[in-house]
Amino acid sequence: MATTLNDLPVRAALVEIAREFHARGWMRGTAGNLSARADAEHFWITASGMSKGRLEEGDFLLVRIQDGGVVERAAPGNKPSAETAIHRTVYSLFPDAHACLHGHSVDGCLVSGRAKRGAKALRLPAIEMLKGFDIWQQNPKVDLPLFENTLDVAKIAAEIGKRLQKNPPALSALMIRGHGATVWGRSVQETYNRFECLEFVLAVAAHARAR
Amino acid sequence: MATTLNDLPVRAALVEIAREFHARGWMRGTAGNLSARADAEHFWITASGMSKGRLEEGDFLLVRIQDGGVVERAAPGNKPSAETAIHRTVYSLFPDAHACLHGHSVDGCLVSGRAKRGAKALRLPAIEMLKGFDIWQQNPKVDLPLFENTLDVAKIAAEIGKRLQKNPPALSALMIRGHGATVWGRSVQETYNRFECLEFVLAVAAHARAR
Amino acid sequence: MATTLNDLPVRAALVEIAREFHARGWMRGTAGNLSARADAEHFWITASGMSKGRLEEGDFLLVRIQDGGVVERAAPGNKPSAETAIHRTVYSLFPDAHACLHGHSVDGCLVSGRAKRGAKALRLPAIEMLKGFDIWQQNPKVDLPLFENTLDVAKIAAEIGKRLQKNPPALSALMIRGHGATVWGRSVQETYNRFECLEFVLAVAAHARAR
Amino acid sequence: MATTLNDLPVRAALVEIAREFHARGWMRGTAGNLSARADAEHFWITASGMSKGRLEEGDFLLVRIQDGGVVERAAPGNKPSAETAIHRTVYSLFPDAHACLHGHSVDGCLVSGRAKRGAKALRLPAIEMLKGFDIWQQNPKVDLPLFENTLDVAKIAAEIGKRLQKNPPALSALMIRGHGATVWGRSVQETYNRFECLEFVLAVAAHARAR
Repeated sequence: MATTLNDLPVRAALVEIAREFHARGWMRGTAGNLSARADAEHFWITASGMSKGRLEEGDFLLVRIQDGGVVERAAPGNKPSAETAIHRTVYSLFPDAHACLHGHSVDGCLVSGRAKRGAKALRLPAIEMLKGFDIWQQNPKVDLPLFENTLDVAKIAAEIGKRLQKNPPALSALMIRGHGATVWGRSVQETYNRFECLEFVLAVAAHARAR
Repeated sequence: MATTLNDLPVRAALVEIAREFHARGWMRGTAGNLSARADAEHFWITASGMSKGRLEEGDFLLVRIQDGGVVERAAPGNKPSAETAIHRTVYSLFPDAHACLHGHSVDGCLVSGRAKRGAKALRLPAIEMLKGFDIWQQNPKVDLPLFENTLDVAKIAAEIGKRLQKNPPALSALMIRGHGATVWGRSVQETYNRFECLEFVLAVAAHARAR
Repeated sequence: MATTLNDLPVRAALVEIAREFHARGWMRGTAGNLSARADAEHFWITASGMSKGRLEEGDFLLVRIQDGGVVERAAPGNKPSAETAIHRTVYSLFPDAHACLHGHSVDGCLVSGRAKRGAKALRLPAIEMLKGFDIWQQNPKVDLPLFENTLDVAKIAAEIGKRLQKNPPALSALMIRGHGATVWGRSVQETYNRFECLEFVLAVAAHARAR
Repeated sequence: MATTLNDLPVRAALVEIAREFHARGWMRGTAGNLSARADAEHFWITASGMSKGRLEEGDFLLVRIQDGGVVERAAPGNKPSAETAIHRTVYSLFPDAHACLHGHSVDGCLVSGRAKRGAKALRLPAIEMLKGFDIWQQNPKVDLPLFENTLDVAKIAAEIGKRLQKNPPALSALMIRGHGATVWGRSVQETYNRFECLEFVLAVAAHARAR
């Protein structure tokens, strides 16, 4: 079997993803954050303010999922990503989530920017690529949960927790308007695969038009 | 003469193509599949569920073209790609097909997504790049056979067999709506060349507009 | 902490940026110029007419910020970039500017080309990526100062000096119509990060459309 | 001074360009051809049917500019590119042309495809990037000569010779509709620079739209 990202130590795998996604334009500047479970109660997440094209294995902090997200291990001066609360919510809600990737894409901003004010979801085009999310239906009607962006990340995380607990999404992903996608999966490799599948679907949505 | 993909063992050549097409966005996640003839009666095809950016030579299975596609050689746990039936149809119909590549592109989804329900073909723009398919005509009217996507791959394969046997396409390629292109050729290098030519033509079709 | 561009000698860092931005299409041909402060009174800037994909550390000149931009060090035959006057203006106006990058992008030309004649600014989409410029507001209304392009670079530089001194921009960047963006920052890494953030925002602006 | 493409043996420089332009999508499949002067009476040009991503130094033929383009040196089996006649015309018309590059781009096809039937030129957007062609004017009105594509390359070459001799273009480039650009320059590096400048300008033209 092919060597996959799952065969690497998780932080090494996330570093590789960060460099690749930076090069593809999905983690420009210091945007984006990457995490993976260390065990049932902890996950590793990128420190705040790091350039994703130059990330290193020392740039991760060990954070508790519960208990307010206590930082248990960190290099001096490193603070957890501002969006750690969203990752904590994902790991709390979905026990089989093993990794979580958040990036910003031009296509994601184009698609979410066109949604009506107050829209709770983006209807995705019913294309084959959705099978990357284990959606095996004929012409599936798949909705990507949409959240409004605010400066108050804790508020976004709370809203995500509330809505996704009630209505778990058909695909393991969500979108914050004018901001970017968050994708999770049962392994680092699956999460990577799904992130790129979602960006493909968003690109189709962004550029589709009537003849 | 330049060293070409034809100078490599076929599985090594397909691995190289997989990594390159993954990087170009034509084989995101585990999408896409690649095959090449081993002999008159067999071909190698990628195992199901592999990330194309990390494919290795051990990730191919040896499959019979006839006899229901019996798998004759495979690493433990590997199952043939779900779309093996389409490759079998191509090798059955076209004895000179030596390799077959199937990928998903954003442009392919944009173009096929705009076709009318029930359309049997996509008329391609009459550009020079069609010469990559040995089409040497002034302003050629070239149709890319179009098939509806369904969950039932065997049904798509049967439809391909039926329609292409009656009407062999002007270019060695076909499109499944909202899914992607399948391209074949008389060698691995030719198939690679034609795949990138077709994607070029689809990009022009996707973005063309009246002034 | 991750090794950043700030850990490299400034000219080595600028060479790395030049090669990367050339590959991304932001410094095609000999277009674009890069500078970084040497000390409070001098900066290094690229020589005129260099291909940015092949820049080397010897291709920089040491220029005084004041005193008409006297060249204090240069390889034989090297002349300072034609746009040195704009860099001098930036370093004069903003004492904390440590580096300054000017490139040309297709998206920048699309966005600036659509602005009304005489427009003094481009209103940027209120997306999360603006945080790359330390803009922490809810739905911020951010204007990118816009200048008309003319053959007389000294005139553009004078206009930049006049307008930005009176109205310092919310983000450390400006745009010349049909030409490109100029971005500065408190370090080479920050300037690099902000340049790619601005290009992301311009890409969104270029391709946004009403549903 | 930076090492440039002009510091390499010409065929090595052209091989480097071919691999790079293939990767950028400007020489897909076997499309495109590259040449450079060997001396006042001869030039090296790529053999027909080569994949530009895998070109090698042995893949060039030595051709006379006059006398019907006699091939003076070639590896066994190699035939000169079908578009050799166009390169011969360029070297005949412009004694200072030292290299000539022909590629196919999606943007070039989009722009030329929209021109009216019979149009003799494409008016280019008046952007700064035109300075890459030594066009130093305020809001320049620059026309890229446009030729209709036909199967008969000799006819295209004759038409190019006739029209460009009478009206030398403002920029050292021409476009064949639905086919691609041909660019020449006084050195390999200048030709490379100009090719990427022209593609930048074509990208702006392809995607510009009224607000």
